[in-house]
Amino acid sequence: MAQGIQRRLAALRSKMAEKKIDYYMIPTSDFHGSESVDDHFKVREYFSNFTGSNGTLVIGAETAGLWTDGRYFIQAEKELAGTGITLFRMFEEGVPDIPEFLQSNMGDGQTLGFDGRVVSTKEGKSLEEKLKDRNIRFAYAEDVADGLWEERPDLPKHEVMVLSEEISGQSMQEKLRAVRAAMKAAGTEYLMLSKLDDLMWLINIRGKDVACNPVALSYGFITLHEFYLFIQQEEVTEEFARYAKDNLIEIRDYEEVTDFLQRYDYKGRVFVDEGNLNYALYKILTQRAECQAGDNPTESLKAVKNQTELSHMEKVYLKDSAAVIKFIYWLKKNVGREEITELSAAEYMDGLRREIDGFLDLSFPTISAYKENAAMMHYDASPESAKKIEALGMLLLDSGGQYMGGTTDVTRTIVLGEIDPEIKKHFTKVAVGMLQLTAAKFLYGCTGRNLDILARQPLWDIGIDYKCGTGHGIGYILNVHEGPQGIRWRYAPGMKDAVLEEGMVISNEPGVYIEGSHGIRTENIIVVRKGEKNTDGQFMYFDTLTFVPIDRDAIDTAYMQPADIERLNRYHEEVYTRTKEYLTEEEKEWLKEVTKPLKI
Amino acid sequence: MAQGIQRRLAALRSKMAEKKIDYYMIPTSDFHGSESVDDHFKVREYFSNFTGSNGTLVIGAETAGLWTDGRYFIQAEKELAGTGITLFRMFEEGVPDIPEFLQSNMGDGQTLGFDGRVVSTKEGKSLEEKLKDRNIRFAYAEDVADGLWEERPDLPKHEVMVLSEEISGQSMQEKLRAVRAAMKAAGTEYLMLSKLDDLMWLINIRGKDVACNPVALSYGFITLHEFYLFIQQEEVTEEFARYAKDNLIEIRDYEEVTDFLQRYDYKGRVFVDEGNLNYALYKILTQRAECQAGDNPTESLKAVKNQTELSHMEKVYLKDSAAVIKFIYWLKKNVGREEITELSAAEYMDGLRREIDGFLDLSFPTISAYKENAAMMHYDASPESAKKIEALGMLLLDSGGQYMGGTTDVTRTIVLGEIDPEIKKHFTKVAVGMLQLTAAKFLYGCTGRNLDILARQPLWDIGIDYKCGTGHGIGYILNVHEGPQGIRWRYAPGMKDAVLEEGMVISNEPGVYIEGSHGIRTENIIVVRKGEKNTDGQFMYFDTLTFVPIDRDAIDTAYMQPADIERLNRYHEEVYTRTKEYLTEEEKEWLKEVTKPLKI
Repeated sequence: MAQGIQRRLAALRSKMAEKKIDYYMIPTSDFHGSESVDDHFKVREYFSNFTGSNGTLVIGAETAGLWTDGRYFIQAEKELAGTGITLFRMFEEGVPDIPEFLQSNMGDGQTLGFDGRVVSTKEGKSLEEKLKDRNIRFAYAEDVADGLWEERPDLPKHEVMVLSEEISGQSMQEKLRAVRAAMKAAGTEYLMLSKLDDLMWLINIRGKDVACNPVALSYGFITLHEFYLFIQQEEVTEEFARYAKDNLIEIRDYEEVTDFLQRYDYKGRVFVDEGNLNYALYKILTQRAECQAGDNPTESLKAVKNQTELSHMEKVYLKDSAAVIKFIYWLKKNVGREEITELSAAEYMDGLRREIDGFLDLSFPTISAYKENAAMMHYDASPESAKKIEALGMLLLDSGGQYMGGTTDVTRTIVLGEIDPEIKKHFTKVAVGMLQLTAAKFLYGCTGRNLDILARQPLWDIGIDYKCGTGHGIGYILNVHEGPQGIRWRYAPGMKDAVLEEGMVISNEPGVYIEGSHGIRTENIIVVRKGEKNTDGQFMYFDTLTFVPIDRDAIDTAYMQPADIERLNRYHEEVYTRTKEYLTEEEKEWLKEVTKPLKI
Repeated sequence: MAQGIQRRLAALRSKMAEKKIDYYMIPTSDFHGSESVDDHFKVREYFSNFTGSNGTLVIGAETAGLWTDGRYFIQAEKELAGTGITLFRMFEEGVPDIPEFLQSNMGDGQTLGFDGRVVSTKEGKSLEEKLKDRNIRFAYAEDVADGLWEERPDLPKHEVMVLSEEISGQSMQEKLRAVRAAMKAAGTEYLMLSKLDDLMWLINIRGKDVACNPVALSYGFITLHEFYLFIQQEEVTEEFARYAKDNLIEIRDYEEVTDFLQRYDYKGRVFVDEGNLNYALYKILTQRAECQAGDNPTESLKAVKNQTELSHMEKVYLKDSAAVIKFIYWLKKNVGREEITELSAAEYMDGLRREIDGFLDLSFPTISAYKENAAMMHYDASPESAKKIEALGMLLLDSGGQYMGGTTDVTRTIVLGEIDPEIKKHFTKVAVGMLQLTAAKFLYGCTGRNLDILARQPLWDIGIDYKCGTGHGIGYILNVHEGPQGIRWRYAPGMKDAVLEEGMVISNEPGVYIEGSHGIRTENIIVVRKGEKNTDGQFMYFDTLTFVPIDRDAIDTAYMQPADIERLNRYHEEVYTRTKEYLTEEEKEWLKEVTKPLKI
């Protein structure tokens, strides 16, 4: 393999020389900045052999470097061995980032090449800024690696599905009116929209072009009166063609977008989201029209779920919760009796979800991490590495589904045998934090930064932190991660915060990750609701969507105040009453037992 | 009086006509944006009769309006009666703010006058921006009201005092090096400094030109090699003249600053703090040099107290706490037996402070608010209005002193007789919040926005909010309010947050304010400290400086978790052991009783 990579790099270098490109950069992205990408876009993997989800390859005439983050250092070392590619460990002390590397390695007047379609405007402009003293030319208009990649998979092409209003709860036209109002309020005539989940939400369609994310590759160019949708012809069904006609959507081919933007006769300013629009299209727009940067209005509109969406989600979450309960019951009963691995456990879980009516896909690949593997936040078991699960320690299971009626995400850490008192302490603190955040009553205007400490404080009290946010927004039959809301504590000057609005859906997932020992995460999904309004303001609170027991075998009430125990007991009571109808008699009996109130 | 005001306004209007000024604006400020102002600067009061601490008068040829906030609506109505001045209730629905008023009242090409020295650069630029469509001329170079004000008090002139290094803990030269490093880091050659407490901190001097704030009217113009201080000659003692010479401070007359800035030969950029520099000086600077906006580096340096400052503060706070304990003891013993009013109680408290060695001044006028008066956050008892205090309800006492060794600020709400269960509930929730915030352990990087909810949540839980921040920074022998840190929850796009740094001193003062019924505030001062550092990061915590009992007569443990009760008991134990040496036998005996642990 390593020799194969060297040959591929040699071919790339000779093409670079031909095009007078001194350094060529290959990130991991599609044309829309999606979190996961289809095989067609795995150019970096093709030229480096590195398979991790995050990584950027930079190739010079004699050097080649790959930048990735701490999750992948060990894997990248193995996969890069013999390729001649140097591993740059991102965020480690003394390791230059890519702009720093280019600053010190590129000569004055040299050329940096990259496919401008897989780099965001924000990244591109940041590179421009950081390299401006170097008089560097950017060659971004061409995918130099294309043509060199033999048997490159085609762009994914799957037919899109139109959502009925019974499922979407709001017509495309209503949504479009709100979007156009936001465009006008921003003083813009046009909106260039390339964020796939935002487009799906707006049009009320779903696709299958990105694994686990039900989106279709597409671009939208929205004027105050027209709507141009750029999408592959193969994806347009008869149903969608009719729907498009009814909704005055002008369908154009996906590839036509560049040409269209080059020729369009702009009469006003174009609203662009620099974090999501790709650099190549941005350069066209900014050469032809005045661009105004801002956040996609679609993002915040989409984040607030409507009543129809919420009521579907409530139902879907109960069924999804019941599947997880079934899984826990099965695992506890069978562990130590039959051979179960991290992978077979995940498959069992996935199988339970597939049986739920309306199942479409997983919302992300199931994370099934046994014992110390759970300390890796994004552990991904492979057939070779999958650990055997025994009647000892704990299994962390983080999983979710895409259903016609909602996207789910839930994590439980399941006790399989004897565990240390220290682990119980950690587990209890995580549960206390999760329930404390859920119980928050807060004034309208709060953002996740105000509330994060409610989940984190029980752990900070014992000198432990989890190195990630407490929560992320969740899509509706869409991406399992969406913005703009989040529950995070860290501050950086200039950063934006989203006020928690009624109807936003968000995860609540504190955890403990002790390298080489154990990992704990307890994740519920919660909805922002309006509560009492009085002279002091509008109070808000959270409702819970997820109803799966929190393993009492790892709870030590010595670390709980009476209020914490009451919260857990109330939650467990609800878990039982809400999910029992989906369970067998055996499962119900077991659930009754494991949700019994703890003594205060 | 009202007729007198009409005459004064007539005189002002004829001078406005002479100067071709269509509208003239008189805010309440000195040349340095100080929170309180000396009598010399009370121009708005002279022309309106309105004596509140916040208010802006706008005069047109036929109209006159006064803008003030909710604290002063009733008072302003009375004081403005018969003057012909309209009251504009700030922040009420449908009430225009001043720029909106000017937008709709000023004609194209008209002139707006104001004394540019009492308007900040930020306010001035905001007016420019908001009136830019109107082609409005700004006449800001002259105090038009001057000359019309007969017997206007002179500028305050008090001799400055030089602090020894035993008191300041850091020499002026060391501080100046840090300031110059920040100037260089910002790419600037000069710093125009006009914030009085920052200047006092930097030079290690104190003045007496603003009531309760030990500052001297002055400006600093700092280059990378020189330091020009503009100060009234009458304030320069022989000692200070010597000190200035030793420290290479070039003393110039206070009035010379304008001329100096106009003639200076600028060779680089000038660092200015637009929120604190006045508009008149800014206009001179920006016409002559390139200005770079930023926060005064002095502000964040000053906020982090050094070891010497902290150890003096610890001692001063114990003595100050003991004085408050003496007051509470006296009040509880004598209420109902002798005539005590809000004002005489405040005087008694102030008298106890004056007896403490090193006493310089109060740090703000003592707030002594009985029963429903305590619901007004900034209640100011006057000889006419002062309520008689009886053996009923509660007295809220918010007070503090300036000592050679620190600035204090403390609030207790003291029970004098029977109180409602509802009030006990509120009181208990306030105490729980205050102690919960004090107990926070948090990662370095947190700002007040992350922590505010710890104090507020017990009240939000019962649908009550206090309409102010939880805490403000506190100066060292300086202003009782200082930045940049604060404990607040509200978010607005673009706002800045200050990370809580080791050595910052901050108030912790949740409260309940029920109009017409009662007010509760419990305020301790806390210091940010470094705690454990591990692989998860640097943990921080708070130490407490204030040791005064929290009135157990208003505590209802039904609203406390065991952890809350433990915190209160631990705090009370410390109150006793730390302050007893300053108390008489009688007081000690009483304190022992009121700090006994509550049962869990």
